[in-house]
Amino acid sequence: MKKIPVGIIGVGGYTGLELFKILSKHPYFTIAYVANTSAQDRIDALHPSLTKISSMPLSPADPKKAAGLCELLFLALPHQESMQFAKEALELGTKVIDLSADYRLSKEHYEANYCTHKDPKNLEHAVYGLVEYQREAIKNASLIANPGCYPTASLLGLLPFLPYMDSSVFIDAKSGVSGAGKKLSPNTHYPLINENIFSYQPLKHRHQIEIAEKCQTFGHKDVKINFIPHLTPLTQGMLVSIFATLHTEINPLSILQEHYANEPCIRIREHSTDVLSVRGTNFCDIYAQTSGRDLYVCTSIDNLMRGASSQAVVNANLMFGLDELSGIPLLG
Amino acid sequence: MKKIPVGIIGVGGYTGLELFKILSKHPYFTIAYVANTSAQDRIDALHPSLTKISSMPLSPADPKKAAGLCELLFLALPHQESMQFAKEALELGTKVIDLSADYRLSKEHYEANYCTHKDPKNLEHAVYGLVEYQREAIKNASLIANPGCYPTASLLGLLPFLPYMDSSVFIDAKSGVSGAGKKLSPNTHYPLINENIFSYQPLKHRHQIEIAEKCQTFGHKDVKINFIPHLTPLTQGMLVSIFATLHTEINPLSILQEHYANEPCIRIREHSTDVLSVRGTNFCDIYAQTSGRDLYVCTSIDNLMRGASSQAVVNANLMFGLDELSGIPLLG
Amino acid sequence: MKKIPVGIIGVGGYTGLELFKILSKHPYFTIAYVANTSAQDRIDALHPSLTKISSMPLSPADPKKAAGLCELLFLALPHQESMQFAKEALELGTKVIDLSADYRLSKEHYEANYCTHKDPKNLEHAVYGLVEYQREAIKNASLIANPGCYPTASLLGLLPFLPYMDSSVFIDAKSGVSGAGKKLSPNTHYPLINENIFSYQPLKHRHQIEIAEKCQTFGHKDVKINFIPHLTPLTQGMLVSIFATLHTEINPLSILQEHYANEPCIRIREHSTDVLSVRGTNFCDIYAQTSGRDLYVCTSIDNLMRGASSQAVVNANLMFGLDELSGIPLLG
Amino acid sequence: MKKIPVGIIGVGGYTGLELFKILSKHPYFTIAYVANTSAQDRIDALHPSLTKISSMPLSPADPKKAAGLCELLFLALPHQESMQFAKEALELGTKVIDLSADYRLSKEHYEANYCTHKDPKNLEHAVYGLVEYQREAIKNASLIANPGCYPTASLLGLLPFLPYMDSSVFIDAKSGVSGAGKKLSPNTHYPLINENIFSYQPLKHRHQIEIAEKCQTFGHKDVKINFIPHLTPLTQGMLVSIFATLHTEINPLSILQEHYANEPCIRIREHSTDVLSVRGTNFCDIYAQTSGRDLYVCTSIDNLMRGASSQAVVNANLMFGLDELSGIPLLG
Repeated sequence: MKKIPVGIIGVGGYTGLELFKILSKHPYFTIAYVANTSAQDRIDALHPSLTKISSMPLSPADPKKAAGLCELLFLALPHQESMQFAKEALELGTKVIDLSADYRLSKEHYEANYCTHKDPKNLEHAVYGLVEYQREAIKNASLIANPGCYPTASLLGLLPFLPYMDSSVFIDAKSGVSGAGKKLSPNTHYPLINENIFSYQPLKHRHQIEIAEKCQTFGHKDVKINFIPHLTPLTQGMLVSIFATLHTEINPLSILQEHYANEPCIRIREHSTDVLSVRGTNFCDIYAQTSGRDLYVCTSIDNLMRGASSQAVVNANLMFGLDELSGIPLLG
Repeated sequence: MKKIPVGIIGVGGYTGLELFKILSKHPYFTIAYVANTSAQDRIDALHPSLTKISSMPLSPADPKKAAGLCELLFLALPHQESMQFAKEALELGTKVIDLSADYRLSKEHYEANYCTHKDPKNLEHAVYGLVEYQREAIKNASLIANPGCYPTASLLGLLPFLPYMDSSVFIDAKSGVSGAGKKLSPNTHYPLINENIFSYQPLKHRHQIEIAEKCQTFGHKDVKINFIPHLTPLTQGMLVSIFATLHTEINPLSILQEHYANEPCIRIREHSTDVLSVRGTNFCDIYAQTSGRDLYVCTSIDNLMRGASSQAVVNANLMFGLDELSGIPLLG
Repeated sequence: MKKIPVGIIGVGGYTGLELFKILSKHPYFTIAYVANTSAQDRIDALHPSLTKISSMPLSPADPKKAAGLCELLFLALPHQESMQFAKEALELGTKVIDLSADYRLSKEHYEANYCTHKDPKNLEHAVYGLVEYQREAIKNASLIANPGCYPTASLLGLLPFLPYMDSSVFIDAKSGVSGAGKKLSPNTHYPLINENIFSYQPLKHRHQIEIAEKCQTFGHKDVKINFIPHLTPLTQGMLVSIFATLHTEINPLSILQEHYANEPCIRIREHSTDVLSVRGTNFCDIYAQTSGRDLYVCTSIDNLMRGASSQAVVNANLMFGLDELSGIPLLG
Repeated sequence: MKKIPVGIIGVGGYTGLELFKILSKHPYFTIAYVANTSAQDRIDALHPSLTKISSMPLSPADPKKAAGLCELLFLALPHQESMQFAKEALELGTKVIDLSADYRLSKEHYEANYCTHKDPKNLEHAVYGLVEYQREAIKNASLIANPGCYPTASLLGLLPFLPYMDSSVFIDAKSGVSGAGKKLSPNTHYPLINENIFSYQPLKHRHQIEIAEKCQTFGHKDVKINFIPHLTPLTQGMLVSIFATLHTEINPLSILQEHYANEPCIRIREHSTDVLSVRGTNFCDIYAQTSGRDLYVCTSIDNLMRGASSQAVVNANLMFGLDELSGIPLLG
């Protein structure tokens, strides 16, 4: 069988590198184009860990060249840049999976939280790629908005319990530092992260609106989301606690087991979840417990894999009619 | 002025070592006795970092000897052992600051969560040494129950807002690994902690009842405490998030500033708190924010200092009529 | 093609788990038997990260059962236990790759550093599985002694320069903590490792004799090896510095490039090596620099992969006439 | 007794902050002036951990103002800036302790490794403040060149053995990341440091010449120094291995014990050294072992304390005729 040619636009960051690794080993996709704005002209110069693996040339992203070579493009670009590129690529007939925030929200929510949307037409038919809730829509999509890492971990734990919620939801999320990207900033300076923990943008992070909007879309319910992200001293991984008082007493593990009974990438844990058990995989592990009507849910994902790159490849598998687990890392 | 002789019973653990360091530099106390059950017979053999600092002899704890030499004893012993020793020492006329859980709870709560209490008589008049709420009682106490690390960080953030609460409170606490002590356990094995985060004993940790009982004692209010502790990959430090829906809208920073206006060891932070800023000190930093009636409070302490040893020495200062900040580390 | 059935004896440790992961994805081997002495009776209970991946039953190791089911056994057992098991398995006609120290040394060196050897007959024909130096011998071997992690990283950097050495060699090795295994010990206690570095067993570690003996075997030269291992605050990875004064000036990078010209798992780095670039792979990265006749060589490996499990699978590939890179992780 | 007024020029970095903390608690010095080029106008805005401790105003460094207010200035400035400021301050009659490299080397070595020297006159009489070797000279100095962190840890281990050395010396040094300063750089980016170790500027770091020059100055011997620094995943601390083949067999621990018999800040360790035992202190711990004529020496210091700030304050104590341990942290 001939492999399907795909491209990675923005291969310089952590997400781009993980995409490259997954796609390099994929049984049905082949990487036909990689682009990046960087001083290096070959991918192994940009990522020394790829020495002896690949020496693909790098060049600034060119939509025409990309669309000419590839049937699908993964965009690992900053928001704003992403929709500019996606718009052109889609016009040229390529499929797109966008890992930025540009197609995740309604135009109204996007513009209130980010900036003016430059591609409202495609935004309308973009599919939010949270696999467990959008499998059929993804199969027919030409443009996927790959979910944010925090929303992925939050929604997978929250949505099964939404029918029992009326009131406010509190989400305490702990992320590894790779989520802050490769760009230098005080929040990635080793001596400020090591031996430290802190919340940032409490109740104001832009993933809060993404979680709230998708609760409405998939759960048909307006809940008040209070989202507190933290940076923690680890590179890769995410643990999310969800708290709410329900309107009735429930058996939370039974609900989870039923809700996700046939999901290959969700594991219901019986005692607790942790970050290491999902590291390097597309799994989302979930644990839940109640005390009376008070609910505690805990989910864990690898922020770069399930929270970005491996989830994007599951979406790609579905878009091309492949087994959704083809080439997906399940062993860390 | 002649220094007041004090003793440390159980100097082998992290808490005992921090007590030793603080008391070594204290202007009014002098360490007259240290005890520990260990293979080493001198403190610098037990703690190599004390080489050239002290070579005090070590021996198993002897209440009579301790009481004969000291006016005050700090007990850094496992619970159960602590009340056995405290009982004898108190009978011999020494004052006691107990860093275990043995005198923190009502007899009823203690026995429901730990074991049969062996010293109910002294338990009745033990003072819970949360300095900001018990300053006057501490001054006259002969037996202090030094608060647990999680309850210290939780109560200092929670109590100012208790008047506005009716419903359930959710506490998501993140602790450094030194809180688990010096004893080897899977939860302190480096490869299981590093690059990992996980909750343990969710909704069942014994500090949950300590927090709930003290809300009643100091805030005269029955609130439902849902407490989730986590181990995080750092040695020393604690960050606690508190979530609740209030019955009215408030200005949380104003409330904190007023509530703790004259407190020397509380700092109200205007943007966020973090663990590093309080490391090695007796400070508790607090930040709070609301969204409508939903409240987020964040506190940070050093679990070994404010959560144990330096708080114990503040208690000691008060018991002996000294300036409460004498010898207390405020610079990390 | 029918897959070759293999077994893992001692699947509970870090090495055993990595073997399981590599072999699970291997194109030509299939895991037919796993054994471990543990309270759990299924592999996913022992290693929760394997949930939904495998639920193979676990039982104490039985040589007859193992040999009946498998054509090759990987032994991830403590030394002494290993030779007992290997002896029985070999008699039953199975091939064996032993990851312990039991077959690495000459009888004389083994007994001087470990204990009485229980299987001297097989020891005589065991092949030391350092692939780059033993490829042909491995192909015909029925018993492989898989090299230790420190010797692997040391020898790969040292052997190319042995012809230029007369005098003493100094090796400063830095290992992640997973090298100390899953067993609890003070040297794996998080608060003693985190924010710390220290050497252990300086000049007395048993890998020193392994390095020295193999210098003689492969380089036909008696050099004085001075080996200093360190524990460093990371889980997985190893960096080794080698220092020596040569008898002549050389161009070290040219020598390396020539020496390892056709080696697929060696990468000569032009500026430096680091641990992250080889993480999760079978690569050994090597850098070297001289100042006059003074030589500095630096190598990096993943201690659990190239230092144990992935190197064992390369050996297995060779033993069965497969492409040596079949199923070998080269992308972290 | 009236306290001696001192100033800190460049209080924004890690070294400046540690100086501030030590001097804040010092019994005989008082901080009369702090300067920094920063957006913040108060020290507690620059260093939030100083909230409730000090709110001293900050302004760009002014030599006249500094010299008018202070009898001694600590310069924690980048090299080049430092000599410009020192020159002016010295002319105005203040004493200076310079923590940069500007006065550490001979003019010839300085200009070969840094840049043209702007203050050769003062350079001539600057005293290299390695306390154990320069105690008397320091007492009479008006300008101290505070040693670099790597040279401090290296020289203290190396100098006692210099009489027995002829040949090349190899130094493998492992530093915490705070040594790289507060400025953002790829070498301080959390995901590149965490779970990683690597050498940088091997055989070319500018501290190599500092070590070599001082071996000549204090040991009257030309040895070939081969210096390899590493960044390791910890914030604070340094471990240095020294390797050399001696011209005779020695008892290394006896030599150390005799050499440093009366030194209050050197501890000869009998089994090994580690980083945690010296953390937060001015101690240098040293261990040594031989195998035949091959020597291994290991030293550990806190790079910010003994490697910079606390060593500077010992120098200050000596310059003003105080007990050299006044206000010096010996308990972490």
